[in-house]
Amino acid sequence: MRTFNITKPNENLRSDIQNKIDNLNKPRHSLGMLEDIAMQICLVQQTLSPELQCPCHLLFGADHGIEREGVSVSPRSVTWQQMINFSRGGGGVNVFSRQHNIKLRIIDVGVDHDLTPFNNIIDRKIAPGTCDFLYGPAMTEEQFDKAIDTGAEMVDICKHDGCNIINIGEMGIANTSPSSIWMHLLGKVPLQECIGAGAGLSDEGIKHKREVLETAVERYKALKDEPSPLSYFGGFEMVAAIGAMLRAAEQKMIVLVDGFIMTACMLAASTLYPDVLSYAVFCHCGDESGHRRMLDIMNAQPILNIGLRLGEGTGALIAYPIIESAIAMINEMNNFENAKIDKYF
Amino acid sequence: MRTFNITKPNENLRSDIQNKIDNLNKPRHSLGMLEDIAMQICLVQQTLSPELQCPCHLLFGADHGIEREGVSVSPRSVTWQQMINFSRGGGGVNVFSRQHNIKLRIIDVGVDHDLTPFNNIIDRKIAPGTCDFLYGPAMTEEQFDKAIDTGAEMVDICKHDGCNIINIGEMGIANTSPSSIWMHLLGKVPLQECIGAGAGLSDEGIKHKREVLETAVERYKALKDEPSPLSYFGGFEMVAAIGAMLRAAEQKMIVLVDGFIMTACMLAASTLYPDVLSYAVFCHCGDESGHRRMLDIMNAQPILNIGLRLGEGTGALIAYPIIESAIAMINEMNNFENAKIDKYF
Repeated sequence: MRTFNITKPNENLRSDIQNKIDNLNKPRHSLGMLEDIAMQICLVQQTLSPELQCPCHLLFGADHGIEREGVSVSPRSVTWQQMINFSRGGGGVNVFSRQHNIKLRIIDVGVDHDLTPFNNIIDRKIAPGTCDFLYGPAMTEEQFDKAIDTGAEMVDICKHDGCNIINIGEMGIANTSPSSIWMHLLGKVPLQECIGAGAGLSDEGIKHKREVLETAVERYKALKDEPSPLSYFGGFEMVAAIGAMLRAAEQKMIVLVDGFIMTACMLAASTLYPDVLSYAVFCHCGDESGHRRMLDIMNAQPILNIGLRLGEGTGALIAYPIIESAIAMINEMNNFENAKIDKYF
Repeated sequence: MRTFNITKPNENLRSDIQNKIDNLNKPRHSLGMLEDIAMQICLVQQTLSPELQCPCHLLFGADHGIEREGVSVSPRSVTWQQMINFSRGGGGVNVFSRQHNIKLRIIDVGVDHDLTPFNNIIDRKIAPGTCDFLYGPAMTEEQFDKAIDTGAEMVDICKHDGCNIINIGEMGIANTSPSSIWMHLLGKVPLQECIGAGAGLSDEGIKHKREVLETAVERYKALKDEPSPLSYFGGFEMVAAIGAMLRAAEQKMIVLVDGFIMTACMLAASTLYPDVLSYAVFCHCGDESGHRRMLDIMNAQPILNIGLRLGEGTGALIAYPIIESAIAMINEMNNFENAKIDKYF
């Protein structure tokens, strides 16, 4: 895997930024999380007047070998059907990208279907789905590197357009399964507490999913020289997301983090490069079992908690205008002096 | 006080609306609160294709006699200074109204300062502040009726412009005090649990505020034929807000509900006309002591919980795009059939 040069933002401006925020015409910290987000983005951009430019959304799609084990309520055909639906503008990801004028790029990194007839799906297919990790590694190291590089390449395309804030989403039936295993192995949380209903499994379905994942993890742990859990369990769309997160942080862009799967990817990215977290804005806490716990591991305060569990990056898209509000606050609100107001306290 | 003709929306369309939402290309209820908001607005508008038209924000400003007792960290001069700041576009309320293209109307219903030189402040001053309720009623019944009518009049102006969704905010130093007392008297919560730091009181300041409010409530309860707590303790901006809420519900408009003070006003409105709650979308849960509890009394599920406590209606303005997302979802997402996707489950 390539290396990334990721460093924490310089802290020299922190007191000037705090001073600017505290002098806006409002009681101190009365805009709560907006003030925290403004601080973070000012530090990343090294300015007191931050800007969000050409926001982009990367939607990576891929299939998972583990789907063959019946761990998901939906069949793998839904992955390609949804990719085509997205290419036609009718998915949740399309609706909310349009709403906020966010440029959407749809990338096939491993869907088990020929999507080349669809011009607005970028073809970077690594293989038509991963292998079933119940029986061995989901992907080779070479495929892993290719997925990382593809994620990074897509960020470079966005950056070239002037983008400085990026969102990442996924479409991949069964991808809560590898996410749960990453949470378990990387976050040191008991496996059973990492597993939930995904898109809507019954209690019986969840029980089966638990048994399958437990067996897969047992077999993995019995291997000599445990391979990286990232390539052993991951999906191509998830590894591409990690590559995108790391490249965006290297490029000093803000990275929005969506729900359970993207949170698992950020957790994985942070095990490789802990400072990537300085660039991450966590956008929502979903209902999937353990999401809150995984956020806690990274000390993340997500913006929204409104019961979203669609994936595709939609939670982060829906939260995006709150981030715009944080920027508007610091750039447009008068301070006490120019507003001619007695400072509140 | 005038009467309002407020009825619950007809429920006949509920199953058709639910059917439309459940057939959008996503796992069932995977867009969480967006689906609930869409349902509510569809019922209010009696349609499967709802629209938000000409959103307006009414900002009512007034001063409070109780401010003379030192219950607030800020002096009353901040009320008029902020009103002028708002008229010049530099306040939080301006920034977030602009961001979401929401028409802002600033109304003086009782500020202790001459604001007539400011053309874009609508002059409906009832008196230069209420009387100090430590010693008697804050306002007369005649003033109360006038404030209700003013709120209703402002809604009619918005409605005339084509508005079907309205937000309401307030500027009035010391107005957490009457809000706490309303919460106590109308919500049957012990007074001490209704009182918080307002815009930033110290522990000593909170102690003093508690003593003052306790004395005021004791004196009120000792009165023969207890007068209405709405006129006895309320501010003109709060009563105008109640008038606006009731008139908006009568006109079958959606009413956004901001933080602690607006939640207290909605609680008061709902004691007069319980069905007003069918039109209310609760936008955030602030940090002020007891806000969550007051929301619980009305069985309200607020959209945001991000530590906001600025007032002015800003929390609801910041939440507004989430409501737009709910509308975009139901109008723009493909369903399983036209997206040609196997239904997830």
